[in-house]
Amino acid sequence: MELIQRMLLGEKRACARLITTVENDPEEAEKIIREVQKYTGNAHVIGITGPPGAGKSTLVDKMVKVLADKGNKVGIIAVDPTSPYSGGSILGDRIRMQDLAVNPNVFIRSMGTRGYLGGLSKYTKNALKILDAAGYDYIIIETVGVGQSEVDIVKTADTVVMVMVPGLGDDIQSIKAGIMEIGDIFVINKSDLFGADRTATEINMMLDLSMNMDRRPPVMKVTASKGEGIDSLISEIKSHINFLKTSGNFEKRRSDNMKLEVMDLIESELKKIVISRTANENKLETEVGKILNKEKNMYEVRDEFLKLIG
Amino acid sequence: MELIQRMLLGEKRACARLITTVENDPEEAEKIIREVQKYTGNAHVIGITGPPGAGKSTLVDKMVKVLADKGNKVGIIAVDPTSPYSGGSILGDRIRMQDLAVNPNVFIRSMGTRGYLGGLSKYTKNALKILDAAGYDYIIIETVGVGQSEVDIVKTADTVVMVMVPGLGDDIQSIKAGIMEIGDIFVINKSDLFGADRTATEINMMLDLSMNMDRRPPVMKVTASKGEGIDSLISEIKSHINFLKTSGNFEKRRSDNMKLEVMDLIESELKKIVISRTANENKLETEVGKILNKEKNMYEVRDEFLKLIG
Repeated sequence: MELIQRMLLGEKRACARLITTVENDPEEAEKIIREVQKYTGNAHVIGITGPPGAGKSTLVDKMVKVLADKGNKVGIIAVDPTSPYSGGSILGDRIRMQDLAVNPNVFIRSMGTRGYLGGLSKYTKNALKILDAAGYDYIIIETVGVGQSEVDIVKTADTVVMVMVPGLGDDIQSIKAGIMEIGDIFVINKSDLFGADRTATEINMMLDLSMNMDRRPPVMKVTASKGEGIDSLISEIKSHINFLKTSGNFEKRRSDNMKLEVMDLIESELKKIVISRTANENKLETEVGKILNKEKNMYEVRDEFLKLIG
Repeated sequence: MELIQRMLLGEKRACARLITTVENDPEEAEKIIREVQKYTGNAHVIGITGPPGAGKSTLVDKMVKVLADKGNKVGIIAVDPTSPYSGGSILGDRIRMQDLAVNPNVFIRSMGTRGYLGGLSKYTKNALKILDAAGYDYIIIETVGVGQSEVDIVKTADTVVMVMVPGLGDDIQSIKAGIMEIGDIFVINKSDLFGADRTATEINMMLDLSMNMDRRPPVMKVTASKGEGIDSLISEIKSHINFLKTSGNFEKRRSDNMKLEVMDLIESELKKIVISRTANENKLETEVGKILNKEKNMYEVRDEFLKLIG
């Protein structure tokens, strides 16, 4: 495909078009990734997550500028859990995109969860592969850590940066609690606000509770809006990837992620088979009616379908 | 099973033990649900969701008191997305449980997402079936609408109540934006706070944007802590179930949910097959290694496994 050749040469527009294709057309996506995958594996993938309002976008912008100024090519995938009801974030990202997009070394893409349902992480991982193949040195995935799907995405990163802020109530902190386990580096953004030290202490205490750590994640104070702490953060990120590589965890992590990805592919093929068998025969409708009428239980129906599928 | 007999007679302790079993032992769960399912389908299931800090627990407590005082049996399943890091909510629920549990017509159960990963909604649906079979008239599922799993749970309700509060910033409101579509009734709790009218207007505007509604969800102002608006909310909930039943949507909704549940069962059996085939032969490890070494792409590996599974 000519588009793939152009993308491999690093042409931004070809990248953008390929990403649009993998987002919208699963069959084309498979064709593209089949060709492209052998060029992947070189980018350092950084996941940035944290609650809404933590200032992730500002942080990412500053990081990208530092990295790009040093001659690195940087890709950004901003995952935006927006529903049809709230267009705000999308608009914000468009404006942001125009700002960053002028830099020839930067590629930014915003992906809404709208309409993707559970499939989001699959699309995002494909977009990631395209940027990787296109020679981006760093790829940053930025997402609000609210849903399983976003957690899955950020887990695919080599380095996961958890962003927090001082003074968010306990209620809100609890949102991200479920994904604290996956943080490789903890950042307290807006550290010029009151309470930053206390938040740092709390995070350190949480980390102390955690067992079996072959590496203790650093907790860093940053004020992204003023550009404070960005350089240190970037050197921590680099030092994390060095740790992974020297400890042998790098291969393990990528292998574990790839296993999950392959299992997902297998499962989604099997799912297609289930859907086609059940849909074609309209048997599901009838059988579910029998469950609701108390003639059968759902396990009996499941077993019948499993026999049918063979 | 003797325990099932006692549960069917409405014994709370038997209920609690069966729910613990379906939570912890998938094989026993299947046996129990196979026996119990024919007694289900009578409860009115109410889902309560909204962002952290919206006062859902207080609202539920007040609703339960009103319903129970009128002689209804009420079950509550509180889904708590808590990680090992934050024990706060669990403790809160324990205290709450002691308070409500003295009422013989009320059963309350807190289910943490800890350790359940994606399986939460399955366990919750099983707990629901047990309460339904035990003769609870109303079953309230209360959850923070943050993850796909919690969205799945609340979707299984006959009536979904979305709880919001005035004055939560846009950032935080966006969390729940993804699940606004599933609200049958919108409640603005803490309506004595400044900004309640504005929030009501905003929600109404969002609802105006939505197409294809055969029923426009009401937007209600409630102050749960003072008990204001609870009676009206309950009559709206009853009027919603009447709407479902007279419009034929009731059967459709239950049938659609049951279809998803059966599909999930089929898929999780298929998943087990995939895992056992791939794990036994240790082939996955080797094949993933070939992907990472760029000898193969992931679709080639998927196709080999699909052949293997047959």
